[in-house]
Amino acid sequence: MKLSQRGDVDPFIVMDVMEAARKAEAEGRHIIHMEVGQPSTGAPQAALARLVGELQGDAMGYTVGLGLPELRARIAQHYADVYGVDLDPARVVVTAGASGAFLLAFNALFETGARVGLGYPCYPSYRQILRALDMQPVGIRTGMENRMQPVAADLAGLDLAGLLVASPANPTGTMLDRAAYSNLSDACRSHDISLISDEIYHGIEYGIPAISALNVTDDVYVINSFSKYFSMTGWRVGWMVVPEDQVRQVERLAQNMFICPGHAAQRLALYALDARPELDANLAVYAANRDLLVAGLRAAGLDRFAPPDGAFYIYVDVSAYTDNSLTFAADLLDEAGIAAAPGVDFDPEEGQRWMRFCYARQTADIVEGIARLQAFMAKRAAGVR
Amino acid sequence: MKLSQRGDVDPFIVMDVMEAARKAEAEGRHIIHMEVGQPSTGAPQAALARLVGELQGDAMGYTVGLGLPELRARIAQHYADVYGVDLDPARVVVTAGASGAFLLAFNALFETGARVGLGYPCYPSYRQILRALDMQPVGIRTGMENRMQPVAADLAGLDLAGLLVASPANPTGTMLDRAAYSNLSDACRSHDISLISDEIYHGIEYGIPAISALNVTDDVYVINSFSKYFSMTGWRVGWMVVPEDQVRQVERLAQNMFICPGHAAQRLALYALDARPELDANLAVYAANRDLLVAGLRAAGLDRFAPPDGAFYIYVDVSAYTDNSLTFAADLLDEAGIAAAPGVDFDPEEGQRWMRFCYARQTADIVEGIARLQAFMAKRAAGVR
Repeated sequence: MKLSQRGDVDPFIVMDVMEAARKAEAEGRHIIHMEVGQPSTGAPQAALARLVGELQGDAMGYTVGLGLPELRARIAQHYADVYGVDLDPARVVVTAGASGAFLLAFNALFETGARVGLGYPCYPSYRQILRALDMQPVGIRTGMENRMQPVAADLAGLDLAGLLVASPANPTGTMLDRAAYSNLSDACRSHDISLISDEIYHGIEYGIPAISALNVTDDVYVINSFSKYFSMTGWRVGWMVVPEDQVRQVERLAQNMFICPGHAAQRLALYALDARPELDANLAVYAANRDLLVAGLRAAGLDRFAPPDGAFYIYVDVSAYTDNSLTFAADLLDEAGIAAAPGVDFDPEEGQRWMRFCYARQTADIVEGIARLQAFMAKRAAGVR
Repeated sequence: MKLSQRGDVDPFIVMDVMEAARKAEAEGRHIIHMEVGQPSTGAPQAALARLVGELQGDAMGYTVGLGLPELRARIAQHYADVYGVDLDPARVVVTAGASGAFLLAFNALFETGARVGLGYPCYPSYRQILRALDMQPVGIRTGMENRMQPVAADLAGLDLAGLLVASPANPTGTMLDRAAYSNLSDACRSHDISLISDEIYHGIEYGIPAISALNVTDDVYVINSFSKYFSMTGWRVGWMVVPEDQVRQVERLAQNMFICPGHAAQRLALYALDARPELDANLAVYAANRDLLVAGLRAAGLDRFAPPDGAFYIYVDVSAYTDNSLTFAADLLDEAGIAAAPGVDFDPEEGQRWMRFCYARQTADIVEGIARLQAFMAKRAAGVR
């Protein structure tokens, strides 16, 4: 049996680092996890308690393909509460994580070979999913002058069928404001480009609240998730808001490709939407961690980064120390017991000179990680390997 | 924003029937569910109790992309216990239901435009997923003389890249025996066709135990699920066994397309593998239901079907009463309060003259469904609409 070319995608390197860290732990080593973007907290306890009360009395069978109607309605209410947006629940599609939403959105919108713009650096799986589906990721080089986000002027001449933006972005944590969304939305409309807005880090913001693309246009696919702010990574549930006339195509794809998202996970998500006090306590931890890591990286001599506006990552220029971020990440794991993500995962062009550190874990872990990193960097600076 | 052609797949009609049934119930009607292939039972209570004990003390974060190592090992043990097959756990991929496994298998094996053979009638989403991925489903007409399964001679001249078979099959419940698998496997090897074996109804057998494709060859993708025998539909967890040299490509796809299957669902699956007494009690219900429905359909004048060897469906020729199974299904729901699946979902060519009835629910429901069906058919026979 022969493997396909289109299936020959790159690994999601963060997942490989996670597996390497798991092996190291299985061998008895203590690892500080700054690789994968997930909280150390689980789903909100109040939500879990409600789910546990139902688990043994309910078969938790298939839901309908678009998800539990009460969850779709509650998500629509969330847009009224948080963004002041009046949203028809019929436009909400519950998905198997944001990952499921990407598969649905790409298939619903794009033909084989379609060119889809991505601002580099970005979430690695955008590229790999597009490639697996035989579509073409088109990297758009971003700069600090635009907060590492693509802008309208970048789109000319690229012959794009789609543009995928993220705010707050992974790995940089930068955000698009209302004007930026407006400009991009207008440019997409005039170039006949389908706009997808990845908003999975919404709720994790340090100062200015994030704007949704739905604040400026209905002509967009908005993707969100219960993994990050709602602290439910392993439950694999997210959602997507699509234009009204596109719901049925997405539904047909969802029925066939997924049948439905996990039922218990959908219930838990419904209850998590009412557990904001507990989730906001997590947020306070991220905010403290952010400040510690900003200072800790600088003290370790790693001062070339933009302090993040949201999410729980810092993306650092390590070009003074390496031109191979994969090796650098492997050394960090082997020598310092720190799992962190090589930049090449996020940017195939420039990422060999960058690293991403996640600060979503408990503060004590971040403090220990910073201490280990400073010792590791001190040895590097002294030329001791 | 423009919808894609490739995403313009047919609905999974069973899911549409399920949604229509849900709406009827929301309006206060009582519906007998014989449409969707799911037990009325939930996950085994013993397994649920173990999961509940862990839920509030564990964050249930992402697992590694191929799934929990202990679950992969336990699944390998299952092959030793049930099939006498010695299987390396490294070849086991835990997936987001069999649905996730199809997406992974098709992308790992097939190029855009690849022709993939399916014995008609078959599970509808095979066709729709292939179309969404811009691959070509190739229907192979099957006959009662081959128990509605494709045979080696069917493959000549079709220029197939892949062949997907199912045993016990949906919607017919027929099985492939050792000789049938051997012949198909040999034919696939000689025509350079990748073989995929859908074994999600294994464990639900009425007499002869099902054979796995792994009993005759390692040169196959075997797909299985915790949805049916293990009664965990809404948890969305399944697995796939792949040749050793193909694990890494599947892993790279899985990391990017799914990150991981649901964590709690994987734990529950692990515990469900040790809950066979409870699951075998479900099986006794299906066996009783099968006999009741076989007799009930005949008494209703619907006697053109093959009694199933496995799964929990009967696929009935209703050509004496309709040439439009969609309308027939809608009438059954409206007039008799029975949700059942139109054959056109499973066979785009001949399915307008067939219906599928699922008998996975509790026996009382099946008894009531049969009574309603007999009254409905009596009115049809009398020409009263």
